[in-house]
Amino acid sequence: MTSSYPWTPDSAPIRVADLQARLDSDDPALRHVFTEIFHDPIAGQSPINNPLNGALVSVKELFDVKGHVTRAGTRFMAEDAPAVADALPIQRLRAAGAVMLGTTNMTELAYSGLGLNPHNGTPENAIHAGCIPGGSTSGGAISVARGVADIAVGTDTGGSLRIPAAFNGIVGFKPTQATVSRQGCKSLSQTLDSIGPMAASVETCSQAYQVMRDDSATTEREIDPVFIIPDNYGMDDLEPEVAAAFTHAVLRLRDAGHDVRTQSLASLERLKSLAVWQIAAVEAYAEYHEALQSYPDQFDPRVSSRIARAQTLSALEYRTTLNARNDLIRQYQAEMMGKVLLMPTVPILPPSMSVFDNDDTYARLNVQVLRNPSIANVMDCCSISLPVIHEGNATGLMLTAQAFSDQALLQLAALCEALLEA
Amino acid sequence: MTSSYPWTPDSAPIRVADLQARLDSDDPALRHVFTEIFHDPIAGQSPINNPLNGALVSVKELFDVKGHVTRAGTRFMAEDAPAVADALPIQRLRAAGAVMLGTTNMTELAYSGLGLNPHNGTPENAIHAGCIPGGSTSGGAISVARGVADIAVGTDTGGSLRIPAAFNGIVGFKPTQATVSRQGCKSLSQTLDSIGPMAASVETCSQAYQVMRDDSATTEREIDPVFIIPDNYGMDDLEPEVAAAFTHAVLRLRDAGHDVRTQSLASLERLKSLAVWQIAAVEAYAEYHEALQSYPDQFDPRVSSRIARAQTLSALEYRTTLNARNDLIRQYQAEMMGKVLLMPTVPILPPSMSVFDNDDTYARLNVQVLRNPSIANVMDCCSISLPVIHEGNATGLMLTAQAFSDQALLQLAALCEALLEA
Repeated sequence: MTSSYPWTPDSAPIRVADLQARLDSDDPALRHVFTEIFHDPIAGQSPINNPLNGALVSVKELFDVKGHVTRAGTRFMAEDAPAVADALPIQRLRAAGAVMLGTTNMTELAYSGLGLNPHNGTPENAIHAGCIPGGSTSGGAISVARGVADIAVGTDTGGSLRIPAAFNGIVGFKPTQATVSRQGCKSLSQTLDSIGPMAASVETCSQAYQVMRDDSATTEREIDPVFIIPDNYGMDDLEPEVAAAFTHAVLRLRDAGHDVRTQSLASLERLKSLAVWQIAAVEAYAEYHEALQSYPDQFDPRVSSRIARAQTLSALEYRTTLNARNDLIRQYQAEMMGKVLLMPTVPILPPSMSVFDNDDTYARLNVQVLRNPSIANVMDCCSISLPVIHEGNATGLMLTAQAFSDQALLQLAALCEALLEA
Repeated sequence: MTSSYPWTPDSAPIRVADLQARLDSDDPALRHVFTEIFHDPIAGQSPINNPLNGALVSVKELFDVKGHVTRAGTRFMAEDAPAVADALPIQRLRAAGAVMLGTTNMTELAYSGLGLNPHNGTPENAIHAGCIPGGSTSGGAISVARGVADIAVGTDTGGSLRIPAAFNGIVGFKPTQATVSRQGCKSLSQTLDSIGPMAASVETCSQAYQVMRDDSATTEREIDPVFIIPDNYGMDDLEPEVAAAFTHAVLRLRDAGHDVRTQSLASLERLKSLAVWQIAAVEAYAEYHEALQSYPDQFDPRVSSRIARAQTLSALEYRTTLNARNDLIRQYQAEMMGKVLLMPTVPILPPSMSVFDNDDTYARLNVQVLRNPSIANVMDCCSISLPVIHEGNATGLMLTAQAFSDQALLQLAALCEALLEA
């Protein structure tokens, strides 16, 4: 799966034209993936040593792109004024020579890990026919999995880069929140949102991250390359195919001499009773409560109903949850001591689109897919999902490391990726 | 006022004995300053190159000190179990050879800039007889101003290091919040609390800060040494003596060739309508609501009444204020571009103790003393108050710089201190 620099400045116009032809012919593989195509002129004069010259990038429609409306997967923002400037990560990608293809589909306001969007339609999983793409960066994942984009830029509040990466056989990287500026990106949760890339390989994710990353980010930390599989969190209720793929991956790591251990983590035990939903709901409500009051019918009811849970919360309840999260971060750091958490990204295979007629199923499966990846958002970590294609099924191997060890995590992930492909 | 290393390991036992003698004779200058004296054995075997060997440190009673009760200026914590470990900044000071003298008096829960404490009594200002010390680090400031402690360790949520420093002719330094760990320090406001030192000189503050600072703190930023006096915030309602001292100080800087300008700042204009009180009240309420319900009569009513304002706030109101603060930080940074804000620390001279019979006077003066220093807490900056003793009055010159430029600010402050003393 590792591809080294598939892009060239010369091939970019051809690839863009090919994409447009596929869209014009309504290629089902790309249906509901893009919400807008930019048709930007492709610059040919970028400095030769620009790392992303000619790389094709798809942009989750949560980021401001100059001259385009930032819709965030909603109906109620569709008539907003176009953005007057690119979001900072988009600026940086362009400056490095990347070509912005267009905006991609997403869960409304990025508030679900399943990737369904009743306004735009839902793209089909790239590997499992008739199944959901995962989300919230649904279109972004498919754009990469279908080979149309080299990089998808998205956000991850509880797994929104890693879940669709795992479901579609690609890499999704959630950096440490503070290392990539959120300027010009609409917010779901100020506390939990991170911006990051998806790509076919760790190398490409790393290249995109180096470009998007803030110069002033905190000093990098090293990793202690010991893998901890928590035996009291996130390893239950695995579908048999996921369990088999995970075991396969773990054995590859162990056979290569890596230190892989199981351990019970008290911090993850406590995480089970943390009301994480309050954090996302209150913060989304603070962003969108006026729209929710003005245009309640324009919302996806599966999104608005969860945001509306914040209406009755007091400042005390919300602050108490934030404080409990901060305590938990300290406890987790003390337990992990720079080691790496190793888990299946998602405990299930991508479910069929047809099971979502039922709101209860939606709610249950949403909680299930968010369970493992959201650890990194709650604990303020960096985390990456590597594809494990095992017996035809797309699953994810998730490595989670402490804050500000992003570079070390990417290096370690590249080693693991090579082992999984070998 | 600059004193170079007044401490030596040999003199420490003599100075501690002298302090005890003054306390035994109820020296009025030290009345209500300390809440406990530790009588720790004074280590003599510290490595020779320890920077603080023999330095005497007073500790605001908000920090855990192993074996002692952390009272936080309250009655309701007086029977708590003794702390099982030193707070992290205290550990670091001890490891650098400093001697902890004892705990110092403070405003209950650190929730006022005036420094009055109805449970412990209130120490007298070290320069203005019969006047308040300023707070909340009241005892800490007097312990340094009276020459008993070389360093006072305290906290600053809206000016609690800089206000009493200005009122007592010493230096108070509020570092960038994220650069000093708050582990083992009771919290007033998770968002606004910073830990820092007070001392007779910038040099000593800097020495203490180097020891307390986290190793992993973010890369340091440089300062653009241009001083901005905001002409739309914090320069009104100055008492004539403060205005005269500030003009005197500004002329000294200008005469030495410094670039000093006046400028109207849109971010400070917007700050006037930010409900900062919600942040402190909600966060204090989250920490102490159980005690407030269990022992309402044990609280200073001037503190509990302000905390209780959080009871009726919704999560939406509080989060909206946090978001507005974050927007304001971005706007302020863009306006200041690394320049230094220059203001009087406090617009008034320390008021007489006798004016505080009246709750309205208390409320009005508290808002007045917090007005200027709290800019740095809201804007997530570092800030230092330098003593300006002018015609016998103690006032403060406050320099505020952007986050993570602590080292550059301390260097610039040392230059200014020398000019003010010349």
